[in-house]
Amino acid sequence: MSLLIIGTVAFDTVETPYGKVERALGGSGTFASLAAAYYTRPRLVGVVGEDFPQEYIDLLASRGVDIRGIEHAAGKSFFWHGRYEQDINIRETLVTELNVLETFDPKLPADYLDSRYIFLANIDPNLQLKVLDQTPAAVLTMADTMNLWIDITRDALEQVLRRVDIILLNDSEARQLCGTPNLIKAARDILAKGPKAVILKKGEHGVMMFTDQAVFSLPAFPLQGVKDPTGAGDAFAGGFIGYLAGLDVRDDAHMRRALAVGTATASLCCEDFSIERFKTADRQAVSGRIAQIAAATAVDYAPLFGA
Amino acid sequence: MSLLIIGTVAFDTVETPYGKVERALGGSGTFASLAAAYYTRPRLVGVVGEDFPQEYIDLLASRGVDIRGIEHAAGKSFFWHGRYEQDINIRETLVTELNVLETFDPKLPADYLDSRYIFLANIDPNLQLKVLDQTPAAVLTMADTMNLWIDITRDALEQVLRRVDIILLNDSEARQLCGTPNLIKAARDILAKGPKAVILKKGEHGVMMFTDQAVFSLPAFPLQGVKDPTGAGDAFAGGFIGYLAGLDVRDDAHMRRALAVGTATASLCCEDFSIERFKTADRQAVSGRIAQIAAATAVDYAPLFGA
Repeated sequence: MSLLIIGTVAFDTVETPYGKVERALGGSGTFASLAAAYYTRPRLVGVVGEDFPQEYIDLLASRGVDIRGIEHAAGKSFFWHGRYEQDINIRETLVTELNVLETFDPKLPADYLDSRYIFLANIDPNLQLKVLDQTPAAVLTMADTMNLWIDITRDALEQVLRRVDIILLNDSEARQLCGTPNLIKAARDILAKGPKAVILKKGEHGVMMFTDQAVFSLPAFPLQGVKDPTGAGDAFAGGFIGYLAGLDVRDDAHMRRALAVGTATASLCCEDFSIERFKTADRQAVSGRIAQIAAATAVDYAPLFGA
Repeated sequence: MSLLIIGTVAFDTVETPYGKVERALGGSGTFASLAAAYYTRPRLVGVVGEDFPQEYIDLLASRGVDIRGIEHAAGKSFFWHGRYEQDINIRETLVTELNVLETFDPKLPADYLDSRYIFLANIDPNLQLKVLDQTPAAVLTMADTMNLWIDITRDALEQVLRRVDIILLNDSEARQLCGTPNLIKAARDILAKGPKAVILKKGEHGVMMFTDQAVFSLPAFPLQGVKDPTGAGDAFAGGFIGYLAGLDVRDDAHMRRALAVGTATASLCCEDFSIERFKTADRQAVSGRIAQIAAATAVDYAPLFGA
């Protein structure tokens, strides 16, 4: 079933204790759509500048991403430069150049207007709202965000929260948004703002999903060889919604499975710089990773409740 | 099957954003044995001073703890005073008075020498070693520790690591012990020091268990109403080993189940100050909590690997 993803398509310069890449392919839309492409053919909406290499676009297309929604604008592409510390959970942003993003006004191609699954990856919430306005056929909408938007575009973000089905945040963003250190309370407070589900990304500690009916927790894949965590959250989200869109399902049991798919694609993403791992990992690699997650979390509770 | 627990039996003064208790019943041995008592009759070894109220001892006995191993010494009981911040994951120790612990030299009662399951709760590793010397019938030994012992009694702690089957640490202790920010790498490094299994306690993020064969991850119980986390780690450990000792089992499947039992008892412990929650929670309450953990972590992976 049709999945539309809006997000950034960008140059990333990334330094980690394990190496450095310069002006590599990056962006929330890029990582999310490459991950989603394991289970469906995502329609990617974004903008790049005149400096963006055709080979990066070709790579997305070759991995099954529908690239007709990528706008080519005058000017330079979005650029991000970050550095990770020895503790790879900690990173510093050295440079952010919005460039063509500053004037981006997403207009969906006519073919995209019937999109049923919508992922608003991390980008200005005002742009996320513009996409919601153009997707009346949506049956499942999900938005990601970041601390920057909580700080500077809070009103637009609150509108997004009222309009989407699922909101994704990391743990520190949830605490920041609600002003409470307790993650469970923060998630409940965010649910009250409108979305039907809140998904908290906790990095090495896994993910949690909250609805009015249930709380669900899934540990992360135990990864020793993290080389570059850039894009892991976007790959998680893309794998999650790509799986749901591919099957056209939205029930709780499939959402839980989809969180495992997202966890698998996120862990693959961390194993190499930029989008390198997505060039080599096929769907079987994702399935193998999911099998490892299943094995690493399996408990047979039945004997605890026996006669 | 017989379970012996050595740990502190103490006075705790605790301040949290939700209240304060003064000179309440506390100590690693206390919390661990109350949790273990849901599944077996633990033999508690510890020391108290002349100021220790008989009612605290009576309470332990009434909950099924074998208290014949609690030594009554001249002097004052071990005293700890801590304060938790608004973010209840952060605490400050205001006072630690060792008192009778300073000269404690554990001599096990003759009836305890055949103990098969041994839990060396958080206490000076030199005392842990003395207990190992007196328990030749042990089939499963587990030790807990803390940052203090990593700092000041590292050699004794390394000896403990070489001699026990299971070591318990929290995440910051594992990082401290191995000098690496990656928890998976830290756990592998600790395994190489001798124990057959490493259990990492991550508080609100759950637990992980590492052996040469497998990695296992279990999320925490999603608790919104944490009143006082003091003793949660000890209650976790006591529930874990109490379940194994009660059934006399040590295989991987039972260890995973035991981690869920520990998680359940730890979450109960946090819901009230001191050991209050153990006064009211019966074994059915523990089972109910385990059922909630099972529900909050259940994923049916089968369709992901279908034909």
